[in-house]
Amino acid sequence: MKSFHPPQRTLMGPGPSDVSPRVLEAMARPTIGHLDPVFVSMMDEVKALLKYAFMTQNELTMPVSAPGSAGMETCFVNLVEPGDKVIVCQNGVFGGRMKENVERCGAIPVMVQGEWGRAIDPQQLEEALKANGDAKIVAFVHAETSTGAISDAKTLTEIAHRHGCLVIADAVTSLGGSPVKVDEWKLDAIYSGTQKCLSCTPGLSPVSFSDAAVEKIRNRKTKVQSWFLDLNLVMGYWGANAKRAYHHTAPINALYGLHEALVILEEEGLENAWARHDKHHLALRAGIEAMGLQFVVPEGERLPQLNAIAIPDGVDDARVRGMLLSDWQLEIGAGLGAMAGKVWRIGLMGHACNARNVLLCLSAMEDVLTRLNAPVKKGAALEAATKALG
Amino acid sequence: MKSFHPPQRTLMGPGPSDVSPRVLEAMARPTIGHLDPVFVSMMDEVKALLKYAFMTQNELTMPVSAPGSAGMETCFVNLVEPGDKVIVCQNGVFGGRMKENVERCGAIPVMVQGEWGRAIDPQQLEEALKANGDAKIVAFVHAETSTGAISDAKTLTEIAHRHGCLVIADAVTSLGGSPVKVDEWKLDAIYSGTQKCLSCTPGLSPVSFSDAAVEKIRNRKTKVQSWFLDLNLVMGYWGANAKRAYHHTAPINALYGLHEALVILEEEGLENAWARHDKHHLALRAGIEAMGLQFVVPEGERLPQLNAIAIPDGVDDARVRGMLLSDWQLEIGAGLGAMAGKVWRIGLMGHACNARNVLLCLSAMEDVLTRLNAPVKKGAALEAATKALG
Repeated sequence: MKSFHPPQRTLMGPGPSDVSPRVLEAMARPTIGHLDPVFVSMMDEVKALLKYAFMTQNELTMPVSAPGSAGMETCFVNLVEPGDKVIVCQNGVFGGRMKENVERCGAIPVMVQGEWGRAIDPQQLEEALKANGDAKIVAFVHAETSTGAISDAKTLTEIAHRHGCLVIADAVTSLGGSPVKVDEWKLDAIYSGTQKCLSCTPGLSPVSFSDAAVEKIRNRKTKVQSWFLDLNLVMGYWGANAKRAYHHTAPINALYGLHEALVILEEEGLENAWARHDKHHLALRAGIEAMGLQFVVPEGERLPQLNAIAIPDGVDDARVRGMLLSDWQLEIGAGLGAMAGKVWRIGLMGHACNARNVLLCLSAMEDVLTRLNAPVKKGAALEAATKALG
Repeated sequence: MKSFHPPQRTLMGPGPSDVSPRVLEAMARPTIGHLDPVFVSMMDEVKALLKYAFMTQNELTMPVSAPGSAGMETCFVNLVEPGDKVIVCQNGVFGGRMKENVERCGAIPVMVQGEWGRAIDPQQLEEALKANGDAKIVAFVHAETSTGAISDAKTLTEIAHRHGCLVIADAVTSLGGSPVKVDEWKLDAIYSGTQKCLSCTPGLSPVSFSDAAVEKIRNRKTKVQSWFLDLNLVMGYWGANAKRAYHHTAPINALYGLHEALVILEEEGLENAWARHDKHHLALRAGIEAMGLQFVVPEGERLPQLNAIAIPDGVDDARVRGMLLSDWQLEIGAGLGAMAGKVWRIGLMGHACNARNVLLCLSAMEDVLTRLNAPVKKGAALEAATKALG
């Protein structure tokens, strides 16, 4: 068996997105011990940088040592106890995964089913809460990676709190690309991923918990069903106490990468990062629409960093993505769940969100779709996008 | 906040161990998608290489996308159902963690308590099984990272099978450093870590499951309590089927690193790697004993890759380790659990298991202990070690 040398792709799917060379370089630095005082100082910096990214003062803000789905599970297994009633708002694949999590905690999910590709309707949540006075937690996806719809996290949280519920929010695709204001919106538990708008490699899941959430975790009647994800134990390693207790071996080099990715985010500034995602989304949109293709999510509910485009009738989804990959080294995403075969998901995330990639994507799609005789307008996309870029 | 630049340590604790520069370089290669056909081919190679490392033909052999403690949890949550009786042999910290896992699965642990620093006594297991005819699983730690004792996995497994139990074994510290013969010993479920004798960075946990274990997982009465670790779902992504279904986003670059680490292991050959660990253990031992220090684990039950040394009376444990780190950039491990403050754990794992490190460790310890007026013999260790190296 020989060493593996990956091709150089451009990653414009739903994540992983292109990783900054600075992050890759950081990951290759020499490994040190997970209890080394120098490493513990770096952990403190990672926590401080994550607080900046999440716009929070929450003391319990740290990366879970596993991908985003483990971050989701961390929130559920720590906050939900057997028999609890949990309202889950679903408007895509990841709301369904939340339901799975609730059930596997021995709790009772009450589903608020919204339309896929639309924001969650706050009114529907209000009604569900009125009908379920004993609900303890409300969970929703802030940025649905499967559809590209963004929901009003602030309003949903206000409603949940008015009914005495804690809130769990999925910010896997929003963090670093769109505003995620944990303290201002009063979110209780939030998880994200490193491989989207933070432009780090996949494998870690930043999480943050409010004081109310921490209190609930500390006063559970039952033990957290996962030893690995039990925050009562994890806090001993990531906590404020200078003497860190061994829990599990931290993924040292992955954390070097996350540290560097967060330093880059801080250098740019959160607001500038959001503006950059908006600007390039508008340029991509101009090009996509000039080509005659349609967005799935209505304006005003669209994530700038994840663009779901309807696949024109008669066009072979897999073939288009295959040609983009083989002929242009460009990855875009397939549809997921109910949207499989119906949409392409074009990511403009973090480091990959730049003018060069907008033009590459439009040119490559026009080339491939034209060669396949798909019903697209030729020669208009680049001009529209360039104009939008200003 | 600035980029983080770690110092260059020599890692001779219980892991992480020194990582080969080839592995670090591999991790810095460009990220590609987790469903990219090129990546899927690399996953197949990782599986084949892990089968080689585990000496197994088990189809379900793959890395869990999280550290060793998640590998442990993967074995327990998939194989144990609520109410099951599980015999757990404990001779150190990690047997205690197994007990925690059993309890959090809603199952009943029956403890076989052995002496810390000794191998597990097969006779004790036999008696426990006779007294618990309804036990379904036997779990033990092959190589106790907390003490450096190795147990006879083959005999323990024979006994467990004779009583109709499946076997879960912890090979976190043994894989790549000592024989781990999954098929020959008929182990049903095994987990390891990447940061010990595989000399990869921490963050992944190789696991392997026998056909009997897979059958049990496929025929569970209850859902696996962890969505993230549910092998019924994970198999869809890592399985034999060429069409891989998205489950979670794989830690791409960490897997590049594991691939390279396994290529290095295959280049050297398993038997040669074991022999190298034995040889350098004997050299370290010669030096340690020449210095007048004592091993904790009796000969014949010692892991070559993890050497637990008794701290002489009156010597300040933390100060010695601190001076080794600050003055020599050398990390050795503290004691864990019942052995905290009583032992040092000196790792000779994978890439870090070489003659240079043996001499560095002996020289640095002699320097620091002498400066602290510890009762050690001066000037004999290096000669003894060099002679043992031949």
